[in-house]
Amino acid sequence: MASSKWQRFQDYFLQYDDIGFSLDISRMRFRANFLEEMAPRVEVAFRAMQALEGGALSNPDENRMVGHYWLRAPELAPNEQIEQQILETNARIKQFAADVHSGKIRPTKGETFRHVLLIGIGGSTLGPQFVCDALGSADAPLKLHFLDNTDPDGFDRVFAQFGTALAATLVVVISKSGGTKETRNGMVETEARFKAAGLDFRMHAVAVTGIDSELDRHAHKNGWLARFPMFDWIGGRTSVMSAVGLLPAALQGLDIDEFLEGAAAMDRQTRRPEVRRNAAILLALMWHYAGNGRGEKDMVILPYKDRLMLFSRYLQQLVMESLGKERDLDGNLVHQGIAVYGNKGSTDQHAYVQQLRDGVPNFFATFIEVQKDRATERFEVEEGVTSGDYLQGFLRGTRTALDQNDRESITISIAAVNAFTVGALIALYERAVGFYGALVHINAYHQPGVEAGKKAATEILALQRRLKQQLPARPGRSAEELAATVGADAEDVYHVLRHLAANDVAIGWASGSLPGRDKFFRT
Amino acid sequence: MASSKWQRFQDYFLQYDDIGFSLDISRMRFRANFLEEMAPRVEVAFRAMQALEGGALSNPDENRMVGHYWLRAPELAPNEQIEQQILETNARIKQFAADVHSGKIRPTKGETFRHVLLIGIGGSTLGPQFVCDALGSADAPLKLHFLDNTDPDGFDRVFAQFGTALAATLVVVISKSGGTKETRNGMVETEARFKAAGLDFRMHAVAVTGIDSELDRHAHKNGWLARFPMFDWIGGRTSVMSAVGLLPAALQGLDIDEFLEGAAAMDRQTRRPEVRRNAAILLALMWHYAGNGRGEKDMVILPYKDRLMLFSRYLQQLVMESLGKERDLDGNLVHQGIAVYGNKGSTDQHAYVQQLRDGVPNFFATFIEVQKDRATERFEVEEGVTSGDYLQGFLRGTRTALDQNDRESITISIAAVNAFTVGALIALYERAVGFYGALVHINAYHQPGVEAGKKAATEILALQRRLKQQLPARPGRSAEELAATVGADAEDVYHVLRHLAANDVAIGWASGSLPGRDKFFRT
Repeated sequence: MASSKWQRFQDYFLQYDDIGFSLDISRMRFRANFLEEMAPRVEVAFRAMQALEGGALSNPDENRMVGHYWLRAPELAPNEQIEQQILETNARIKQFAADVHSGKIRPTKGETFRHVLLIGIGGSTLGPQFVCDALGSADAPLKLHFLDNTDPDGFDRVFAQFGTALAATLVVVISKSGGTKETRNGMVETEARFKAAGLDFRMHAVAVTGIDSELDRHAHKNGWLARFPMFDWIGGRTSVMSAVGLLPAALQGLDIDEFLEGAAAMDRQTRRPEVRRNAAILLALMWHYAGNGRGEKDMVILPYKDRLMLFSRYLQQLVMESLGKERDLDGNLVHQGIAVYGNKGSTDQHAYVQQLRDGVPNFFATFIEVQKDRATERFEVEEGVTSGDYLQGFLRGTRTALDQNDRESITISIAAVNAFTVGALIALYERAVGFYGALVHINAYHQPGVEAGKKAATEILALQRRLKQQLPARPGRSAEELAATVGADAEDVYHVLRHLAANDVAIGWASGSLPGRDKFFRT
Repeated sequence: MASSKWQRFQDYFLQYDDIGFSLDISRMRFRANFLEEMAPRVEVAFRAMQALEGGALSNPDENRMVGHYWLRAPELAPNEQIEQQILETNARIKQFAADVHSGKIRPTKGETFRHVLLIGIGGSTLGPQFVCDALGSADAPLKLHFLDNTDPDGFDRVFAQFGTALAATLVVVISKSGGTKETRNGMVETEARFKAAGLDFRMHAVAVTGIDSELDRHAHKNGWLARFPMFDWIGGRTSVMSAVGLLPAALQGLDIDEFLEGAAAMDRQTRRPEVRRNAAILLALMWHYAGNGRGEKDMVILPYKDRLMLFSRYLQQLVMESLGKERDLDGNLVHQGIAVYGNKGSTDQHAYVQQLRDGVPNFFATFIEVQKDRATERFEVEEGVTSGDYLQGFLRGTRTALDQNDRESITISIAAVNAFTVGALIALYERAVGFYGALVHINAYHQPGVEAGKKAATEILALQRRLKQQLPARPGRSAEELAATVGADAEDVYHVLRHLAANDVAIGWASGSLPGRDKFFRT
């Protein structure tokens, strides 16, 4: 047994009684003067955050304000117009959900909507998926489903679950730019399903999108049921408290005021420029300490609660997309970031705690404890002991076992999983990520690295079009020959044609024993 | 655009026509003589694998054979007894599933079983969860549900989905040792639900467990519907082709012969000691190259297919529990392992490809391509282009974008997602993990590091019992005072009592402003 760390635990234990939240950083082994040493950078981070909340153009690349904190405190918005936009949108969301629940807004065939099909990807779905899984219940007025990719079989699979319920399904299409291809494809396939079922899609369809985006115009032109705005001062990964997250939450019957209020309460606590009382800056500092400010350690997220299992997926985007940057604010190459993974305890103990305890020490863990075990009656699995006591025991036991082997951990505790605490958790990490960005001097609010892959994908699709035109009849030609014809790389040609041959009866493929000897042809 | 790598692609491209599988390691930048340099270690790995498959005691710590390869090729088992055990068990599984489907085995109230509740954790659920998600369909004869933790609210949530369907639910309890507490707790809570619903649990219950384990004896004594064996030469993380995975698969109506045959086909290909024709050793060598044989790079798994999303969770256990080891076979401290994470493409592109492309270069990616887009009719989202063409485009585009920024990747391709190819994928990684263990000279078949956390958890629960006996009435005592009384660490006492106070009305807590000042008492 390690010697007692009771004193260190108390020294650094931070509780917010108004939120039912605590943060324990005592098992991170930073030296006594670490917080002092970091004071100058912390000062910078506090100032940057203050400027951001005040409406500065904190995303300099895109020349935009960054305003997710205003969503739960509209009175702090930098001008009255923004304040009114938030208040009006939230009021409209609540009214819309109430009208759907009451049957005032109803499907063309049937009494009430029973399902929501949310179509989006990335920041448009990760928040709603996390919130739905964390707070949803079997008796919700509407059940949520997702199309979050451009996988045709994935679409088929979701639609197979619906059957005749399509007639009672509200479709919410979410895309800030309105031009995201995965979302567009999901929408087009969904429209076709509705048509095939003899249903009037526009009477089932709602858009959440940037004002005057491609999707906004499409929805307007086609007379969709409703449109809700995504503000340009909100990024996808911090959009869960905009219409993106609030509309699906309200439709599910969740208390969105509590959700916003939990975030606002955490914001109030973590807005204060006092390091030792500020959970968000302490989190950011621990990340900095753990990875030497260079992301040298992965962040393993271990909530001991089934309902919080998707939190790590949510954080993958929030943390990695915000912090994974090539250059700092001065243009220096820095290759920043922190890798995030994890599912839930104690389940993950049976998957990879073996490596965490004994293996490569390239991580720090974040345990998330939920004090309240269940909403139903206490149930003992043996005399005096509940399943929840075991869950707590495994959390504490694993934290100790890691500490014994010099593996560091943070422990967060919340009173229960509800709209308020989930809002608070999200707000905590949003601010911690913002602070960390400032500590390592990067822009946490853009994502320049995602364009290259999209551009390359677009080139692949353009190549596919050219290839389909150029493809000869049997015996066909090799990838190399076709590459010369269409002016492309032979490897790209090869893969495009192999894929087409597997899916399009018009395209044939004769296997050689090597890619260079394979022939492709029109059938 | 990077210069063409068409030649390098062809040089290293490996296809198995009989499986519809290919492996592309051309975007890993190992030097030309790397494979040669590794030849002596590869030789050792081939020999170790041959010995293992021949029945050697390949888990030296536990003095056990390691026999998962025999499950799909019983004729290779080291003796006839094992061969017969496998054949008999598989035949019994198929008969049992057929009897359930036909209604010959039926619930006490109702015609046929419609649901399976699988209770297990770690190796007892990760395989069935992956297989169910990858191969399941909406019209399966039985629908699978899981209890895979000891979270009371998690139990409540699953049971809330059942409602009256509990009467048509078959319960499969899976635990090799038969003593896993999470699984025991799930079982006890489930028994109570059946009792409350007036259902005879034993007529719904099936055990998959080690012969004569605690669970085996419990099931036998109580006259459960059936028992299926877990062999002591099978580890949890490689048990998906034993009754652990086959029984749930068969109940869902999946073709378990195809599943086994896919694995057998991959085994035949990867058993051959020819490096350039052996996908499993090539994978292991790439992992070694990427992380310098010390796990310096995380393994990011990106299947571009919704159905394969849980593969990374499955691999977390297979890879991290197998390879995350403190000591090598000679007892030297090595802290080995490879961290694994990932969900699915192109969805993850919108979450963290920003970091993969621009951020900390602490990973290598594994793309998994599925050639066949969908089982239903081709559907174009724009002229000549399908959702699947986009999916393929995003995969190729992201692979290119990563390569442009010196981020390395492996690409695996399978023809379609079906029982055969999923079996083959699992077999590939099982053998790659075995090879890698030999390359870095560790025991890949034990998990000594998981005991410490369980032991510490047991101590926490024992402490809880002592504290409940010692707790005084109001005004109560502090954690420190109680710690002195019961002989425990004050921090453990504090957390146990905070948790009890949140869940047990018999335990009270008065908040001080510091943990040391909080008081705990009987109410």
